[in-house]
Amino acid sequence: MSGTKRSDNVVSIRGRNTNTADQSAIEKLQQVTDADMALVNETILSRMQSPVALIPELAGHLISSGGKRLRPMLTLASAKLIGYDGTRHIGLATAVEFIHTATLLHDDVVDESTLRRGKTTANLIWGNQPTVLVGDFLFSRAFELMVKSDSLRVLKILSSASSVITEGEVLQLTTANDLSTTEEKYLEVITAKTAVLFAAACEVAGVVADRSEEVISALEAYGRNLGIAFQLVDDAMDYSSKQATMGKNTGDDFREGKITLPVILAYRRGTDEERDFWKRTMQAVRQTDEDLPTALATLQKYGTLSATVDRARHYGDMAKDALAIFEDNSAKSAMLEVVDFCIDRAY
Amino acid sequence: MSGTKRSDNVVSIRGRNTNTADQSAIEKLQQVTDADMALVNETILSRMQSPVALIPELAGHLISSGGKRLRPMLTLASAKLIGYDGTRHIGLATAVEFIHTATLLHDDVVDESTLRRGKTTANLIWGNQPTVLVGDFLFSRAFELMVKSDSLRVLKILSSASSVITEGEVLQLTTANDLSTTEEKYLEVITAKTAVLFAAACEVAGVVADRSEEVISALEAYGRNLGIAFQLVDDAMDYSSKQATMGKNTGDDFREGKITLPVILAYRRGTDEERDFWKRTMQAVRQTDEDLPTALATLQKYGTLSATVDRARHYGDMAKDALAIFEDNSAKSAMLEVVDFCIDRAY
Repeated sequence: MSGTKRSDNVVSIRGRNTNTADQSAIEKLQQVTDADMALVNETILSRMQSPVALIPELAGHLISSGGKRLRPMLTLASAKLIGYDGTRHIGLATAVEFIHTATLLHDDVVDESTLRRGKTTANLIWGNQPTVLVGDFLFSRAFELMVKSDSLRVLKILSSASSVITEGEVLQLTTANDLSTTEEKYLEVITAKTAVLFAAACEVAGVVADRSEEVISALEAYGRNLGIAFQLVDDAMDYSSKQATMGKNTGDDFREGKITLPVILAYRRGTDEERDFWKRTMQAVRQTDEDLPTALATLQKYGTLSATVDRARHYGDMAKDALAIFEDNSAKSAMLEVVDFCIDRAY
Repeated sequence: MSGTKRSDNVVSIRGRNTNTADQSAIEKLQQVTDADMALVNETILSRMQSPVALIPELAGHLISSGGKRLRPMLTLASAKLIGYDGTRHIGLATAVEFIHTATLLHDDVVDESTLRRGKTTANLIWGNQPTVLVGDFLFSRAFELMVKSDSLRVLKILSSASSVITEGEVLQLTTANDLSTTEEKYLEVITAKTAVLFAAACEVAGVVADRSEEVISALEAYGRNLGIAFQLVDDAMDYSSKQATMGKNTGDDFREGKITLPVILAYRRGTDEERDFWKRTMQAVRQTDEDLPTALATLQKYGTLSATVDRARHYGDMAKDALAIFEDNSAKSAMLEVVDFCIDRAY
């Protein structure tokens, strides 16, 4: 019922993806951030501990389930890009990952999901009660880590991001099953629920490094546009056959009546009869087994999956251009290439 | 399933309580904090706004449902007690109320509650999805307000309180239906889930006012002990006939198998036969209609409700003694009297 699922696909696509170019793009980012990521992983493990054993058990189920930690990687790469040589970005990268993990836990409760990263979801194993609470715990831990950064500006950025994310999720709920959702409204939702955290992840590196406003804005713009591209591709992939190899249930968005760009475009471009089909399946959510194949054929007919990826490419280009002000270095080329990775994984 | 319900009774007891002494005790605290509370109420209303209409609608359902705002009142009274003449306590009192409201929303989802403050719960009206998300939104808004206090120490206190609260809730879940729960473990749970926020609410006033460590510790101790007393009385009242007049379902803790002090003590003091009764009803949660009257009679037989209130009086005394270092003023006498109010509402 709650609109598009938060992008988390980058996570599981590797290792099963046979496209070597894509693999090397994310691997390059991993190499560039390797040493710092080891510290982030240590911090993640130590900060999710609690004398209450169920907390690390439940949090660890998701945290150790093969996530590639794209968001904290962006904080680390941004710090490297601008030559920051301090340590304050480590805790912030951890905070970003905790905020992301908390929202995934709450998403899965809200969506009644059963599968995430190829594993049974925490809510299905332990029930909704501890899943909601451990999400709250990770949110709180994230704030504790942010406070340690000693920067009120960083706290402002991340606490505001956190508000916008939840605002976006509620907006998404209220526009769910609504075929009159415009592309603009859809962009507003994915910006709030996905892109704002990507943006904050990059921006805070510039803030703790005490760089110019120009640098900080460039990092924010890179993250925001990358995040929009990322979610657009995710929403296209929900209808692609590759989805099945990614540890998620296939066709989820359709079955739940989630209105994403591929459907928004197909609804607009369709005949009256096709519109009635979308109304019945997505708005009233009355579906039969033959409806998903019909939906896929209709999306193909109007080319809305590739149109969605084309939109993603546009935001990806803006993300790349935002980095133009920086000197070339290994972090910059990894950050440029990961944009292509995020888009090309659709193919 | 999730142990004792978070204390929220002070809220609805007024207006139906015929004990004039009790009423005047809370009214005194209200009078002392009156002008500041008007500002807090304004801040609450403005900070729960969002262009996403469902957010103020859902949040407002609980926030405007007759809560007497005891926790923010404690922040305001503490500020007055120590003669703070700034404005930073207003946002913090609002943050404290938002944290409390967020946890109530999540509690009601976790407990599948149907009634709170005499009104149908948000989860029952709007469903679990938006209720979880609006809770997250209020948490985030609380952090935004805390950041505005410009005090890293305040942020540390409140973000740590927030972690401890959720940790306490998970601890409570894992000890639910467990009759071997000790009094110590029970105290740990209620300290974490209730008393820590009372403590933080008072402590932050001392911090923003830049007072001595002695003053800050005294405020913290007052809040913490008052919070423990408050929750103890709440847990006793769940078995009292007054509960029915308080806008909550009566006998909730028993029906859900929540292990609170009255039952812990009765289980210890009971015969083998009585222990079997508690095991069947609270541990296995197999109950018939005659079980609640039997439970009440057994609690009466061993005097565990009044024993629970006696324990509360002990913590109440410690709360009062913590204020001994302060000069007498109207805030101090209101804060002393509200301790008695919290305990005497049991009768």
